[in-house]
Amino acid sequence: MDLVKEIVDRILAGEVRTAARLMRDLDDGMPFAREVLKKLYPHSGRAYVIGITGAPGVGKSTLTDRLIQCLRQEGHSVGVVAVDPTSPFSGGAILGDRIRMQRHALDEGVFIRSLATRGHFGGLTASARAVITVLDAMGKDYILVETVGVGQDEVEVAATADTTMVVTVPGLGDDIQAIKAGILEVADLLVVNKADREGASRTYQDLLQMVELQTFRKDKAWKPRVFLTQAKDNDGVKELVAGVREHQEFLARDQGKARGAARYLRVRQELLELLKEGVFRHLVQLLIEDGRLYQIVQEILEKRTDPYSASEKLVTETLGPV
Amino acid sequence: MDLVKEIVDRILAGEVRTAARLMRDLDDGMPFAREVLKKLYPHSGRAYVIGITGAPGVGKSTLTDRLIQCLRQEGHSVGVVAVDPTSPFSGGAILGDRIRMQRHALDEGVFIRSLATRGHFGGLTASARAVITVLDAMGKDYILVETVGVGQDEVEVAATADTTMVVTVPGLGDDIQAIKAGILEVADLLVVNKADREGASRTYQDLLQMVELQTFRKDKAWKPRVFLTQAKDNDGVKELVAGVREHQEFLARDQGKARGAARYLRVRQELLELLKEGVFRHLVQLLIEDGRLYQIVQEILEKRTDPYSASEKLVTETLGPV
Repeated sequence: MDLVKEIVDRILAGEVRTAARLMRDLDDGMPFAREVLKKLYPHSGRAYVIGITGAPGVGKSTLTDRLIQCLRQEGHSVGVVAVDPTSPFSGGAILGDRIRMQRHALDEGVFIRSLATRGHFGGLTASARAVITVLDAMGKDYILVETVGVGQDEVEVAATADTTMVVTVPGLGDDIQAIKAGILEVADLLVVNKADREGASRTYQDLLQMVELQTFRKDKAWKPRVFLTQAKDNDGVKELVAGVREHQEFLARDQGKARGAARYLRVRQELLELLKEGVFRHLVQLLIEDGRLYQIVQEILEKRTDPYSASEKLVTETLGPV
Repeated sequence: MDLVKEIVDRILAGEVRTAARLMRDLDDGMPFAREVLKKLYPHSGRAYVIGITGAPGVGKSTLTDRLIQCLRQEGHSVGVVAVDPTSPFSGGAILGDRIRMQRHALDEGVFIRSLATRGHFGGLTASARAVITVLDAMGKDYILVETVGVGQDEVEVAATADTTMVVTVPGLGDDIQAIKAGILEVADLLVVNKADREGASRTYQDLLQMVELQTFRKDKAWKPRVFLTQAKDNDGVKELVAGVREHQEFLARDQGKARGAARYLRVRQELLELLKEGVFRHLVQLLIEDGRLYQIVQEILEKRTDPYSASEKLVTETLGPV
C-alpha cells in the first residue's frame, strides 16, 4: 500500500518518469497500477480536454504539434494522447507522429503518449481514458486527444472531450457528406486544414452552410465554428486556439446545464466500458474454471446447440431473467 | 414459429431477397431474426471461407472482384462480406466497393453484403459472423470476407477464415515490418498487388525471405505462399485461386489436426464475442431497472468512488468472487 501511495504522490507532483511507467504497467494489467489509478481518479477533472479527430492524412498530427506549441507559448502545461488503431497494421502513423512531435520531447511541460493497441482495459477508449486520468492528475492544464476518425470507438473518445475539433481538408468530396452524417453532431469546431489547397474556400463555405442548416445537434446553444488552417506553416492556429477559448468560456458560463449533462454522460460511458470488459473477463474465468466453456463449444461443434442459444442460456443462468 | 420456419426454408433454398431482409433485421436486433439465425446455424459449416485483409488502398476490392469473377467462371456460387469500419467516417470505401463490384449485382450466384457499423451484435466481428452463417446456410460454395486491416477486430475476422490472404503493395516500406509484427502469423497466402509498380520484385523477395525465416507460426505444416498480382488487369488472379485450392487441399488432407483445432478456436471465439455483448447488455438493463447505474455515476461524480473500484464492486456483487 505504501508503494501505491508513493507512486500517487510522485504523479501528483508531475513526475514524468513515474507517469510513463504507470501507463505501461496499466497496459500490462498490473494490479497495483490499477490501485494507483483509483487513487489518482479523485484528483482528475481539472484539465481541459481537447479532442482532435479526422480521417487519415488530413494533418492532425501537424495541427496537434502546432497546438502544443501555441499552448506552451502561453505558459500552459500540455498532455497528449495519440490514439491510432490503424498503427499495428500500417505502421507509419504513430512513428510519424513521434517524429513530428519530438521537438517537444525535451520540454518537461509536454507529455506525449501513443496508444495503438488495446491494453489491459480491453478497449482503446478505456485505455485512452486511463491515460487522460493520469495526465489530468499530473496537473496538465490541457490534454490533447488525437484520434484517427475510423471506427466508432475513436470518434467516441474525441466526442467526450470538452472541446472536439473535427479536421478535414479541401477536395475530399464525398467526405463532407460523411462528416455531415456521422461527425458534425460531435464537432464543436470544424477545421479545414491544408487551406492552401484548391477548393479550400468552397469546403469552408460548405461547412458554414451545413452548420447553419443543422437542426440535429442536441446542444443547440453552441453553434460550431469553422476555421481555415495551414498547420504546416502555422497559419490560422492562433485563431483556432482562440476558438477553443471561446468554447471553453461558453461552457464555463453554461456550467450548470450543458456541461453537467456532458459530465454525467462521460462518467456513465466510462463506467460502462470498464463494466463491459470486467464482467466478461470474470464470467469467462468462471466458465473456464468449471469446464463449462469447453463443454459448450463441443456441443456447438456437434450441432447440439448454436452459439446464439448457448450465449443466451449462459447469460440467463448467470444473471437471472430480465 | 411458423414465420421463422418459412424464412429458414426460403434461405436454405437460397432466396436472395429473404436473406437480404434477414441481415437487415439482424442488425436491427429483431428477436425473430435471431431465432432464424439459431435455426440456420446447424446448416452452416459447408462453405469455404476466404479472408482478404490489408491496409487501405492496396486494392482489396478490385482483387475481391476478380476472385468473384474467377470463382463464378468455375461455376461456384459466391457470397461476399465487406467489412469497413472506416466507412462511416471516410464515406468512400464501401461506396467504391459497391461500384466496383456492381457488375456482379445481377448475377444470382453472387451475394454481396457490406458492413460498416456495429449492428445489434455489438461488434463488427459478431455481425460479420452472422452474415457468414446466413450465406453459408444459403448454400454458397465460397464466402469472401474482405476487411480493412485496421484494428484487431477486423484482423480477427480475416484470421478465422479457412484461408486468409494478406494483401500489400510495393513500396510501403515500413509496412513490411508491420506485416511481420502483426499479420504474418495469420496469413496463409501473401499477395503483392499492383505488381507493375516499382519495387514489386523486391517486396516479393522480402516476403519470401520472411516466410523462410519465420519461426513463430503455430501451424508449421503450412508454409505461406507469396503471389504477385495486378488485380486491375486480372494478372496473377488464376494463380492466386490455385493457391487457395492448394491450401484448401492441404486442410482437407490434414482434416483431423490443424482444421479441427482451428474450428474449435473459431467456435470458441464466436461464442465469447456473443457472450461479451450479451452479458453486458443484460447487466446494464438490470442496473438501469433498479436505479443502481444512476446512483453509482452520481457517487463517482461526487468523488465518493471511482469508475475502476465501482466496476470491480459491481462485477463481484453480480458474479461472486473469482
